[in-house]
Amino acid sequence: MIKHVVIFNWHPEVTTEQVAALQQNLEAFATTLEGCIEYAVGANAGFCEGTADFAVVATFETEEAWRTYFEHPDHRRIVVEQIGPMAASRLATQIRH
Amino acid sequence: MIKHVVIFNWHPEVTTEQVAALQQNLEAFATTLEGCIEYAVGANAGFCEGTADFAVVATFETEEAWRTYFEHPDHRRIVVEQIGPMAASRLATQIRH
Repeated sequence: MIKHVVIFNWHPEVTTEQVAALQQNLEAFATTLEGCIEYAVGANAGFCEGTADFAVVATFETEEAWRTYFEHPDHRRIVVEQIGPMAASRLATQIRH
Repeated sequence: MIKHVVIFNWHPEVTTEQVAALQQNLEAFATTLEGCIEYAVGANAGFCEGTADFAVVATFETEEAWRTYFEHPDHRRIVVEQIGPMAASRLATQIRH
């Protein structure tokens, strides 16, 4: 299986409404995907200092299923229109698990 | 449930042996934990450019189970003795899922 992992810090002016709208769009999009076993997305739970604002952890059956997600027009639109203006910093990777 | 998500980029001189030893230690430690439902850890699968070197995605039943992990002496030792010298950059967060 493949875990797609992304962590963001938002610009200071980003609102909770923008974050909620992003989470809603990502979750709705994820339900349309084949081979996406789990899609966990959300804001920092607030357990400790020095942690980032938001994370996406998506589990895919295959690399192909991940690539369909990653290159999908709806995903690109969310990245360009929502995440792009919001993100101050981002780290992402995919690992086999 | 709680997802603990961490992404790293290593210093250029870090070796694959160091990364393998870290992964082994983390996985062995995770097997000793109560309330840790899944522990996925690994190096970048190499699917695309511009992605980070390594990620940990751990799923815990409760915040308490996460905190036991996070504050455990064995975890602190791995963080200080292995990850500290290896990591050039790091983002981490915990999300409710």
